[in-house]
Amino acid sequence: MTELHTITVQLHPSYDIHVGPGIIHHIRLHHRRIVVLADERLRDQHLPTVLAALRQQQSAEIHSVVLPAGESCKNLAVFSRTLSQLAQLGLSRDSAVVALGGGATSDLAGYVAASYLRGVAFYVLPTTVLAMVDASVGGKTGINLPEGKNLAGAFHQPRGVWADTELLTTLPASVFAEGMAEAFKHGLIEDTALINAILGQHWTAHSPGLVALVAQAICVKAKIVANDPHERHERAFLNYGHTLAHAVEAATHHTISHGDAVSYGLHYAAWLGKHLGMVDITAMTRAFIDQQRPQPLPELDFAELSGFMNRDKKADEAGLRFVLLEALAKPVLMRVDDATQAAAYADWWHDVKPTV
Amino acid sequence: MTELHTITVQLHPSYDIHVGPGIIHHIRLHHRRIVVLADERLRDQHLPTVLAALRQQQSAEIHSVVLPAGESCKNLAVFSRTLSQLAQLGLSRDSAVVALGGGATSDLAGYVAASYLRGVAFYVLPTTVLAMVDASVGGKTGINLPEGKNLAGAFHQPRGVWADTELLTTLPASVFAEGMAEAFKHGLIEDTALINAILGQHWTAHSPGLVALVAQAICVKAKIVANDPHERHERAFLNYGHTLAHAVEAATHHTISHGDAVSYGLHYAAWLGKHLGMVDITAMTRAFIDQQRPQPLPELDFAELSGFMNRDKKADEAGLRFVLLEALAKPVLMRVDDATQAAAYADWWHDVKPTV
Repeated sequence: MTELHTITVQLHPSYDIHVGPGIIHHIRLHHRRIVVLADERLRDQHLPTVLAALRQQQSAEIHSVVLPAGESCKNLAVFSRTLSQLAQLGLSRDSAVVALGGGATSDLAGYVAASYLRGVAFYVLPTTVLAMVDASVGGKTGINLPEGKNLAGAFHQPRGVWADTELLTTLPASVFAEGMAEAFKHGLIEDTALINAILGQHWTAHSPGLVALVAQAICVKAKIVANDPHERHERAFLNYGHTLAHAVEAATHHTISHGDAVSYGLHYAAWLGKHLGMVDITAMTRAFIDQQRPQPLPELDFAELSGFMNRDKKADEAGLRFVLLEALAKPVLMRVDDATQAAAYADWWHDVKPTV
Repeated sequence: MTELHTITVQLHPSYDIHVGPGIIHHIRLHHRRIVVLADERLRDQHLPTVLAALRQQQSAEIHSVVLPAGESCKNLAVFSRTLSQLAQLGLSRDSAVVALGGGATSDLAGYVAASYLRGVAFYVLPTTVLAMVDASVGGKTGINLPEGKNLAGAFHQPRGVWADTELLTTLPASVFAEGMAEAFKHGLIEDTALINAILGQHWTAHSPGLVALVAQAICVKAKIVANDPHERHERAFLNYGHTLAHAVEAATHHTISHGDAVSYGLHYAAWLGKHLGMVDITAMTRAFIDQQRPQPLPELDFAELSGFMNRDKKADEAGLRFVLLEALAKPVLMRVDDATQAAAYADWWHDVKPTV
């Protein structure tokens, strides 16, 4: 008996996220025409399994289109080309698009599904922890423009998600860790049991209990998204730790991975909270860094990072606000004066700077 | 005192369509940054008026972007370029996009507004009868792909529509007539008073009563759309007369305008209904053709038109269905056997073929 968790995302219409080992072998979709859009790195490894599973359904016409790997698919050229491929395959309104890959693949595939004939059914088979606990939940899809990341897209909820935890065993350790940072963040903003579970052991793709852990992290996001489908209120809490994380990624020209940047960013947010007399979780975020062992940071300059953080203002005419914790699992959105930002930065840097 | 009609479209959220002469002088929008996307043919004539009206609102930052004329803006290149322009202008989530032009302009502008940052506020200032009674109502936006028309897009409802009937006085008569054909169709499927109003006199942009007529035609579409926001059921009735109309446009390589094709298409649908023993409205659709005086048709071949009609199947795996009338204002969707299609065609062609 395999372990299977199902989380229902309470949107209109609602949909289910299934988590378990080996579940991609058992996918059934009731559409006459189905196109699987797959990250090219999965062409030989997982795509044939998915196509074989789908082809067990009689009379369905199953196609696949291979997309450039990872983030390199998230642009207008691939978007445009993929839409044309769907048209050439004769997809109609009652056809379906399936994403097979990480968060970038499902971002592109979801935006294509949202746009083709003004919206066709969309399903997600996430292949990374990050895609399982974050990108697959909530319907944010999109592509990058030359002017910036994720500037064009749509809210398009999937009809169903199958998160097969066996697929995680083929991931590089650094990609696995990236998703754990988001899962830890989910714990900090919403679920103290999840924090304890993550800090309680060193997690790998083979850890017993991983299926339940992934399901628990998905639950957090599913709950937040159901309360705020279009990112107007509490969904902003999911950006906990991300203000500095994005700045670190930009300042290091993305030589620091998103997951590592989030690990550092969570620790900075913790220091901000401590300086403001809110709950002090710096020991906890420090423990997570010790466990994750993110790539060491290069020498960073507060003025430069601050510049990047304030450019985030563009996302909101009201200005830059940080997500902070009043207590564990009690996030709030607030402005922080420059002096406090700088003081927290000094303490943070003292903690995270590479020791020679 | 000017005549002003307001129709509320009962969607979630609902929005208002204002109809009246000169109303574009009085537009007020409460956004800090606003970009007007305008058909280039309106650059000198109406765009300055709109910008001046918007600039009366203090502290708002008003920009404009000129789009290629009419249908030539509805492609991925213009879509992509316009998204980048919004990013370069620093539009944020609480900014707004305003469409100024005909249906093609609002189709492109609406899809841009739906996509930029996954959706910003969208307003429409329609400048043709067709855009007022059809494209501005219901939130269908989109662009063409090399593979076909309107294959990519989004449902994105405007926050408000201002239909200024004074703008219609600068339209060529043929463009004015195009919208009257859609208004007449609205009458046939939903509102017998509207049929009588349209057939009761020869309408021009200067006719007294035009404001009320436009408002009445908008009401029909607003009602249908509110019952079926995503085009799953009765919204299909809006395609009355359009199956043959699209085939005529395709067979004549669009040398027959959409409005003229719809006038002919309504008459064919009437003949189909008569052959099936349903209500006989052939005299009524014939009277409309006599009033509209559409461009004469070239020699047409039923086999060719039938081929184009059946290609519409792509839109629905269940096959081609016609909208027909059980009674005036009582539309139904049904299959029609080939022999009946051919017999109706013979009678229709006898009625509409050019007399030498």
